[in-house]
Amino acid sequence: MSQQRPDNFSSGPAALPAQVLDQIQKDMWNWRGKGASIMEISHRDPAVLELGTEVEQKFRDLMNIPDSYHVLFIQGGGRGQYGMIPMNFMKQSLPVDYAVTGYWSSVAVKEAERFAPVNRVVDKEGDGFISIPHQSEWNRSQDAAYLHIVDNETIHGVEFPSAPDRQGVPLISDMTSNILSRPMKIENYDMVYAACQKNIGIAGLSVSIINSNIIQEPIFKTSMLTDYRTYIEHKSYYNTPPTFALYVTGLMLDWIKEKGGADAFGEINQRKSAKLYDFIDNSSFYINKVETSCRSRMNIPFVIEKTNLMSDFIDQAGQNGLIGLKGHPVVGGLRAGLYNVIDEDAVDRLISFMKRFERENR
Amino acid sequence: MSQQRPDNFSSGPAALPAQVLDQIQKDMWNWRGKGASIMEISHRDPAVLELGTEVEQKFRDLMNIPDSYHVLFIQGGGRGQYGMIPMNFMKQSLPVDYAVTGYWSSVAVKEAERFAPVNRVVDKEGDGFISIPHQSEWNRSQDAAYLHIVDNETIHGVEFPSAPDRQGVPLISDMTSNILSRPMKIENYDMVYAACQKNIGIAGLSVSIINSNIIQEPIFKTSMLTDYRTYIEHKSYYNTPPTFALYVTGLMLDWIKEKGGADAFGEINQRKSAKLYDFIDNSSFYINKVETSCRSRMNIPFVIEKTNLMSDFIDQAGQNGLIGLKGHPVVGGLRAGLYNVIDEDAVDRLISFMKRFERENR
Repeated sequence: MSQQRPDNFSSGPAALPAQVLDQIQKDMWNWRGKGASIMEISHRDPAVLELGTEVEQKFRDLMNIPDSYHVLFIQGGGRGQYGMIPMNFMKQSLPVDYAVTGYWSSVAVKEAERFAPVNRVVDKEGDGFISIPHQSEWNRSQDAAYLHIVDNETIHGVEFPSAPDRQGVPLISDMTSNILSRPMKIENYDMVYAACQKNIGIAGLSVSIINSNIIQEPIFKTSMLTDYRTYIEHKSYYNTPPTFALYVTGLMLDWIKEKGGADAFGEINQRKSAKLYDFIDNSSFYINKVETSCRSRMNIPFVIEKTNLMSDFIDQAGQNGLIGLKGHPVVGGLRAGLYNVIDEDAVDRLISFMKRFERENR
Repeated sequence: MSQQRPDNFSSGPAALPAQVLDQIQKDMWNWRGKGASIMEISHRDPAVLELGTEVEQKFRDLMNIPDSYHVLFIQGGGRGQYGMIPMNFMKQSLPVDYAVTGYWSSVAVKEAERFAPVNRVVDKEGDGFISIPHQSEWNRSQDAAYLHIVDNETIHGVEFPSAPDRQGVPLISDMTSNILSRPMKIENYDMVYAACQKNIGIAGLSVSIINSNIIQEPIFKTSMLTDYRTYIEHKSYYNTPPTFALYVTGLMLDWIKEKGGADAFGEINQRKSAKLYDFIDNSSFYINKVETSCRSRMNIPFVIEKTNLMSDFIDQAGQNGLIGLKGHPVVGGLRAGLYNVIDEDAVDRLISFMKRFERENR
């Protein structure tokens, strides 16, 4: 069945490997010999408790996460974390620093501002979010409670080439759209988090990997579910976890491991994105304005100079088995999500179509 | 395939109808002609936006919800709502009232107490939660911001036979385990909410049905996702909704409608539970201590007087195709979840087994 599937470049919720959909179908009526689907079993059943432990261990193995970091499963996606981070990690007497390098970091900063004033160490909205200034130009606080970045900006296609220097301040990074897409050293961060619906699962689950050093009693009134300590104490099973989503993430992590893990994907993703950027840069028809030093390997937004052609592009791409290419409503235009599940052949097919479309519409 | 499935009495996450699992399998590779699974499509896609509107409309139709009530889809389950309710509906100068009639209402009250002192209008924990005193005995505040009840206590098997009298105070009811199990008049409540993993879907989604009259600016600092106004303004699509869970809830509501809706299930559930209670009451082997006036039609906890037999009961039930009968860890013992998906034949099979087990172990 998978052979006839279109290439799905959606930037999220994003494509799953055929192998994962296959497994979901196989397990539908009888997950692990339980006589029922994973959706139909109590989260207090030993096998479902075990599932949480397993998925945590898979993250630990694939990302080399030290024991001193918690791996927590939380509902509410990236936006949920944007709210929980200031609630949990602000300190009474210290400022907090946010780098604003695209739409998602601008949303994160607005959440933080609901709780207390925030220092924007950099804010490139005025320039249309096409660059990340060198850290020497950042306006950092003397002593911040934390520094927050969005490692890959899914909408603007801007990605940090490497972790910024902590300078003694806890570093918190939203990796929703690039987690496990390349090797990285978790010790360079104090918290890394990701909504799962891009590289590692489906909507409704996020993973937060947190250095136990930064856990504290929140200075604001929180509910149980907005206090990270609840998830730590109950191993993410305080409330009923979204068990199906957790199961799909387990399957995704198995698939990533089987394909060689972050190292292998780092190389493939580099090649895939370089190929598409090269093609766009050598065309006068398609445009991507992001500075080369911080271009995303995961999400490549582009426009056609003749803007009236963009809806034709989407329609014809669809007819040619290429879907999910519409840009986010915030910026419009076009966008190719090149997550792990997109293989190099799919990128070749996209480029072939883009060439043809250019030729026919130049 | 469904014919060979065990009868699954899990109290949650609970069994889904075979018809729903069938449909999930059919849609797996190509939902609504999109060439991809519902899990793989952007929530900004018109078909996925439409899904939210459709599911909302299905709730409105099945429950006769007036336009003046919002229907919101939220992550975090019942416990998430336990936190959001005090955060959103407490008022600076007024007390809040909670009826504590089982485990879940005792959890709800503890969440509320994180924010401000709470008046327990009734608290039957000392008696082991086997009754709901008449409202004339409740110790209600003169003028409360709201009154909170748990309509059906999933663990203790205690259910309100009807809505308590508002007395001019907004009434908020957790119907996680009995929503759409019988006819009810939404106008008797100002908020009704349910985590979906029992009667109407899977873990990871809850529905909150709220009278627009009670929506206010929260008096506490909230994140966007803990403020009901965010869900109202963005029609529950502010953050990426758990699209797969929403889709399953849509299938469940179709199934409920097809089977005759709340009216039909009200009758069937009455018959099913009466049959099991009658059997238990006429046995000296099985015990349920809940007062007959407030026995749950959805969750029937029971014990075997010879307590050492309970794990044998679970094992042998499993061998006879009856699963999910283990009591909640809080109370131990045994429990039969008789949600809509459990038909009368399944209850007969359970009773047959219980008879045989009694005969063999008396």
